[in-house]
Amino acid sequence: MSKLQYNALHTDLYQLTMMQTYVKKGLHNQRVVFDMFFRSLPFGNGYAVFAGLEQIMDFLTNLSFSKSDLAYLESNGFSQDFLDLLKDFRFTGDVYSVKEGEIIFPNEPVLTVEARIIEAMLIETALLNIFNHETLIATKASRMREAAGDKKLIEFGARRAHGLGAALYGARAAYLGGFDGTSLVEAGKQFGIPVFGTISHAFVQSYENELDSFIDYGEENEGNVVLLVDTYDTLKIGVPNAIKAAGKLKEKGIAVNAIRLDSGDMAYLSKVARKMLDDAGYTDIDIVASSDLDEETIANFEKQEAKVDTYAVGTKLITAYDQPALGGVYKLVERIDRGKRIPKIKVSDDVEKVLIPGRKRLYRIVNQKTNKAEADYIARYDEKLPEEGAELLLFDPVHTWKKKTVKDYRAIELQEKVMEKGKRCLPEVTLDESKSYKEKAMMLFWQEHKRMVHPAEYYVDLSLELWELRRDMIEEKRKQINVERKEEQC
Amino acid sequence: MSKLQYNALHTDLYQLTMMQTYVKKGLHNQRVVFDMFFRSLPFGNGYAVFAGLEQIMDFLTNLSFSKSDLAYLESNGFSQDFLDLLKDFRFTGDVYSVKEGEIIFPNEPVLTVEARIIEAMLIETALLNIFNHETLIATKASRMREAAGDKKLIEFGARRAHGLGAALYGARAAYLGGFDGTSLVEAGKQFGIPVFGTISHAFVQSYENELDSFIDYGEENEGNVVLLVDTYDTLKIGVPNAIKAAGKLKEKGIAVNAIRLDSGDMAYLSKVARKMLDDAGYTDIDIVASSDLDEETIANFEKQEAKVDTYAVGTKLITAYDQPALGGVYKLVERIDRGKRIPKIKVSDDVEKVLIPGRKRLYRIVNQKTNKAEADYIARYDEKLPEEGAELLLFDPVHTWKKKTVKDYRAIELQEKVMEKGKRCLPEVTLDESKSYKEKAMMLFWQEHKRMVHPAEYYVDLSLELWELRRDMIEEKRKQINVERKEEQC
Repeated sequence: MSKLQYNALHTDLYQLTMMQTYVKKGLHNQRVVFDMFFRSLPFGNGYAVFAGLEQIMDFLTNLSFSKSDLAYLESNGFSQDFLDLLKDFRFTGDVYSVKEGEIIFPNEPVLTVEARIIEAMLIETALLNIFNHETLIATKASRMREAAGDKKLIEFGARRAHGLGAALYGARAAYLGGFDGTSLVEAGKQFGIPVFGTISHAFVQSYENELDSFIDYGEENEGNVVLLVDTYDTLKIGVPNAIKAAGKLKEKGIAVNAIRLDSGDMAYLSKVARKMLDDAGYTDIDIVASSDLDEETIANFEKQEAKVDTYAVGTKLITAYDQPALGGVYKLVERIDRGKRIPKIKVSDDVEKVLIPGRKRLYRIVNQKTNKAEADYIARYDEKLPEEGAELLLFDPVHTWKKKTVKDYRAIELQEKVMEKGKRCLPEVTLDESKSYKEKAMMLFWQEHKRMVHPAEYYVDLSLELWELRRDMIEEKRKQINVERKEEQC
Repeated sequence: MSKLQYNALHTDLYQLTMMQTYVKKGLHNQRVVFDMFFRSLPFGNGYAVFAGLEQIMDFLTNLSFSKSDLAYLESNGFSQDFLDLLKDFRFTGDVYSVKEGEIIFPNEPVLTVEARIIEAMLIETALLNIFNHETLIATKASRMREAAGDKKLIEFGARRAHGLGAALYGARAAYLGGFDGTSLVEAGKQFGIPVFGTISHAFVQSYENELDSFIDYGEENEGNVVLLVDTYDTLKIGVPNAIKAAGKLKEKGIAVNAIRLDSGDMAYLSKVARKMLDDAGYTDIDIVASSDLDEETIANFEKQEAKVDTYAVGTKLITAYDQPALGGVYKLVERIDRGKRIPKIKVSDDVEKVLIPGRKRLYRIVNQKTNKAEADYIARYDEKLPEEGAELLLFDPVHTWKKKTVKDYRAIELQEKVMEKGKRCLPEVTLDESKSYKEKAMMLFWQEHKRMVHPAEYYVDLSLELWELRRDMIEEKRKQINVERKEEQC
């Protein structure tokens, strides 16, 4: 078992001290709605790939405080009343979410929790942790997939990931985002991801000469014979030895599957090695390239028509090297008071940080003629969309004069209820299903939004009703704040 | 239990296919030596802080293949003979390591494994994963400690870490590297790290007005009353409300411990807020600053004499944002053939990648007069250092004309045997002991090496004997390679 055991104490201390306050003041049963979303896209990408839902549901389903957790909290000064309540604590809320593998954009409610305030608060830290990590890696992987076209992509980053859990869930997210496999055996076992491997320099060095190491390895690993050719000299020693080994192994009925380049100018080396292999009659031996690859290098290799069949990517993928954090947040957007839903807003001087209040529905507006997404559209939860065939007004929520109407569209609702009263209410989705879903979801978007550099912006618009609600709430909140400010100055 | 369960399958596939090859060829019992080290310092820092040893020893002690692991490997085509051998597989090697919290430098053998080749190979992936992650975060934390002087530093990054394990072990590494606490409750429970917390915007928003939220929270969390003052307007609403709350709470005998600034120009805000608090008679209410801090911001705040008592640092620390990977490696340096130790080398065109062959000893050379470290010194394992009082020659291993002799020195050996035949052979070290060790170890270095920007280089020198061995081995290897190259061209 290498699964990270979930624990209610995977939370920030303030969640517990705030919970305690609510409990003491008798406010802990108020029902609230929190939205999880992010505000800006990583890597200058045009979209993000949602990942982490399975792990989030697993976390919520198993959430409880152990005896030792309670003892620890007691030693930290929490009161007995509060600890008594935690003894039987379970997550009993409802969760609405887009599917794993969905293409998501800034400010959209990706996942929405409706629960008692103490439950909704406790889970914030773990939910964001899982969402931020896995969505980040899946998005990075998707960029690499776009760069690599139909070449094979293998995740090789375990030794540089931020701990064993990051390696494991990172491998999963990479596969979801577009990779074909991983070198991490545990990820193969737990998630059914195809595993790949080659040989190391240490293996070659442990032999008196390279050729012997190739032959020994080939003899014992039929079907997975990938020979590392750069230990001494790629073109002058390694590739010739691989060709010799291929000859010897052929006599025993064993094929060499690939050679691996791991240093030097691999675009150039791949072309020369390809010719050497072809000239020797081994057109079926593939070429694997590794060593500090990222989407930019891969795109350049492809542009230069490097003869690489498989890219093995480590550090830059598994740490999301150029932007190792997604700034996902989880915000209170509604309070339910005796059945009445009261939208909440937080107003900030920073315009981009102003929330979208209330429970909402998120739609993807797809043009029926082109079968491409025109924009995403967020409406109030109880609002009706214009009937089929009628026009739908889309306008920029900031620059409101930028508007257009779409007519012949279908609106795909993206969130669905995934948990009810703390229990999963949909059948489990396999990783392969989510991976296929992601591929299908990508096809709804124009290439312009998928471009690696300066992609065209995809719009996320508000319904007129929601836009007006938000505007009115901002104005009211501003008025309140100004009154408070003036009072202070008196 | 939230401890990550260790598993032998936390390894790259090639380790297992190579192991299988050795087993089939009867080569698996050969004894070898691997060194773990890194080649360049992260963040432009002058040193790194070693972290991860406890977790590595835990991993090695518990290493075994479960039934389901073996079933998975069988389904992946591994042979029955090999799987039979894995059934009772344990790590039975010896491990030598520097202490957790030790100050380390490029190319030094930080941790050395001597074991059967199949054991030494299997563990590479997990060892590097743990070392690279934890050393990176501890080093980042140490930079922030240098920037913050004696101000308090609290780790707040759980929601942006790469998964729950990264949050947990990241919090541990941050504490080791110089932080005073964490917000992550699980890290408090597992490692005894002091936990800290404040309140969130959602908490303030869940009340009709800010003041009520402050008072309610204060009443129920005596001793840990840290009020977030930026929800509406820091100086015009938040701080005045905190002062009012402090008055109300005082009547009940409860003190407000601190206010927390979370947006705006916090250097400026801290000065004004300090004056407001002082003028109201609350000189004992501290000021906490958070929001996207890193060592550079902290250093600037300190230079501007910001009135911040505690810095709470999240994303930039827990993801090591500006360089999220340490390139630690694990290399074969010796083979033991019927009791005879044969040093191994890998020669690369990239001079910096040429290994230092053989089993070695690592010393810190400390000047007895200044009590400061002059250089680190790597010698062959069996080599004797000059006797006390005699001169020791230090010279640059690349630019060999750069040399100096030290006389009145002591040589501290940095590696010690930590595992023998697969069992820990030293008593467990607590995290607090390692943290103290790190603080003490830092005192051996001149400020010039600890500077955040362009630190003075600290030298890691080879003994003459080791330097000559390496030079001779490089020349011999080059000769061999050239012969092979020529043969290929015939």
